[in-house]
Amino acid sequence: MRVSVIGGSSIPPETAAVAEELGAELADRGHTVVCGGLGGVMEAVCRGAREADEDDEDGDEDSSIETIGILPTDRREDANPYVTIPIATGLGHARNALVVMNGDAAVAVNGGPGTLSEIGLALAHGRAVAGIDTHDVEGVEAAGSPSKAVDYVEGAVGDEKYAGNGM
Amino acid sequence: MRVSVIGGSSIPPETAAVAEELGAELADRGHTVVCGGLGGVMEAVCRGAREADEDDEDGDEDSSIETIGILPTDRREDANPYVTIPIATGLGHARNALVVMNGDAAVAVNGGPGTLSEIGLALAHGRAVAGIDTHDVEGVEAAGSPSKAVDYVEGAVGDEKYAGNGM
Amino acid sequence: MRVSVIGGSSIPPETAAVAEELGAELADRGHTVVCGGLGGVMEAVCRGAREADEDDEDGDEDSSIETIGILPTDRREDANPYVTIPIATGLGHARNALVVMNGDAAVAVNGGPGTLSEIGLALAHGRAVAGIDTHDVEGVEAAGSPSKAVDYVEGAVGDEKYAGNGM
Amino acid sequence: MRVSVIGGSSIPPETAAVAEELGAELADRGHTVVCGGLGGVMEAVCRGAREADEDDEDGDEDSSIETIGILPTDRREDANPYVTIPIATGLGHARNALVVMNGDAAVAVNGGPGTLSEIGLALAHGRAVAGIDTHDVEGVEAAGSPSKAVDYVEGAVGDEKYAGNGM
Repeated sequence: MRVSVIGGSSIPPETAAVAEELGAELADRGHTVVCGGLGGVMEAVCRGAREADEDDEDGDEDSSIETIGILPTDRREDANPYVTIPIATGLGHARNALVVMNGDAAVAVNGGPGTLSEIGLALAHGRAVAGIDTHDVEGVEAAGSPSKAVDYVEGAVGDEKYAGNGM
Repeated sequence: MRVSVIGGSSIPPETAAVAEELGAELADRGHTVVCGGLGGVMEAVCRGAREADEDDEDGDEDSSIETIGILPTDRREDANPYVTIPIATGLGHARNALVVMNGDAAVAVNGGPGTLSEIGLALAHGRAVAGIDTHDVEGVEAAGSPSKAVDYVEGAVGDEKYAGNGM
Repeated sequence: MRVSVIGGSSIPPETAAVAEELGAELADRGHTVVCGGLGGVMEAVCRGAREADEDDEDGDEDSSIETIGILPTDRREDANPYVTIPIATGLGHARNALVVMNGDAAVAVNGGPGTLSEIGLALAHGRAVAGIDTHDVEGVEAAGSPSKAVDYVEGAVGDEKYAGNGM
Repeated sequence: MRVSVIGGSSIPPETAAVAEELGAELADRGHTVVCGGLGGVMEAVCRGAREADEDDEDGDEDSSIETIGILPTDRREDANPYVTIPIATGLGHARNALVVMNGDAAVAVNGGPGTLSEIGLALAHGRAVAGIDTHDVEGVEAAGSPSKAVDYVEGAVGDEKYAGNGM
């Protein structure tokens, strides 16, 4: 399935490491990362996904893993280098709705107001949301690790409550 | 100034009373309500603003107070009857960004995930946000009454931190 | 009713004169101008509407005529001075859909690619479109003057073909 | 490069054949189709691209060619079966701006008002546009065949006039 990963664009190294691990975990389990396409958590999770490709011994250049970045600007060139499918929108913050709409579930990592808006939009769209060190909001499942966050969203998409969001 | 009022579309009577009082308070102080144009808090705050018109002794039909409703649908007809300037968008939840962008500050009343997303978007756009019985989020000033919420946003828009948002 | 007026932002004086006359004609007949809020045709039509106010002998400052400008940027301050109800969107060219969606019919004056897109969007939304010296497109009624353009859209909104767009 | 293919959703068989040939031509030359994701020209061009895969002897199921469909609805499931990367937007006609923004150039095939709006938006975004049996609009290069349409956009993206749109 597709999983929207949301989080801040300006983050400390330890948050980047968590996001990167999350990207690798998602890719290893066959899921596709959807994100906002810019830096910080968005870049780290894409890098993690790209570098998870077992068949790619020489780094991410040749990885066959796809990552989707839905940008606030109208320029595909603004995507971070680990996004393989950049989608320009020119919508500014309104693109946040598209980021969560294009995943079957979401995982939030850290983040500020923009991430908070994406959590709200994900819940409003009926998506299951796992959170790692992020806003403490009703409806968000606090997960202690990337692996547990992926466990949660995998389970939730199978549940009746969130039925119909998976493809 | 313009104040975005955000809150749930399905609310109990006591929340409607608070929203209505907020609308009256804003209108009395010369501010214009911007909201999402639908029911619940959105309708109550517009009704409060419309009925605050002192010169209108016979109810809201003749009130000169304007209220702006920025709708998720592409039909102006979907606005509640107390919206005098309906703006159709057809953007779904992405219109939440427009609701907060068109106010100089925001007041949140109660609300669920949609309201949470609007709080996040308001903060992301650098707007001051007061909250009445709503999500407990960093950056949102909890106000004990409509009057105190309006006091807060009036003060904040004059502050350097939020400078440039007022017109 | 509301009439969306679409046209270029960089225009010669004679086009500005036509747009201004169109604004006055619409205001005189009790219609509200909706436009993209910027310069050129958008500014001239708003100026014409504002200055049409018979009760306002001292110029547009005190005119009671409202004009709606739906902006591509996220700043209300970007509206031309004759827009009384600026709506910021931050959507770039995607806001063109909102400009035509918020009128019951449209009149195109001159214009380039942006205006062409708005003509297409207006027709796609089922709006009647009159054109003055603009793109020669099937479905657009060529009108020889502002007065005839308003005649056309007034008649069309009453027609069954365009029923349901008026309010 | 990416090429946005725009055209009607309700088309006769001969138009479908042209769109399918266009999709095959684009895929054969290594370009990626971006479209609105629905039926008609959008479906035919994706089918053509998918079935162009030489390494896929058994039909499109295993084709490695990617096709991007940017949908007006908020449901990825609404994409036609030949779209491999569906992007939901929930923006209605406003998504037309995203369809042309995500290509380096555009080819229009036939089409009604929606296509006209996309031609206008493509030109407004500075994209080169080739047209096959479509609206006769200044700035659109009439091409007699899919092959000639692709020749034109390939040449145009290399030109200084359209520089900066390719990646």
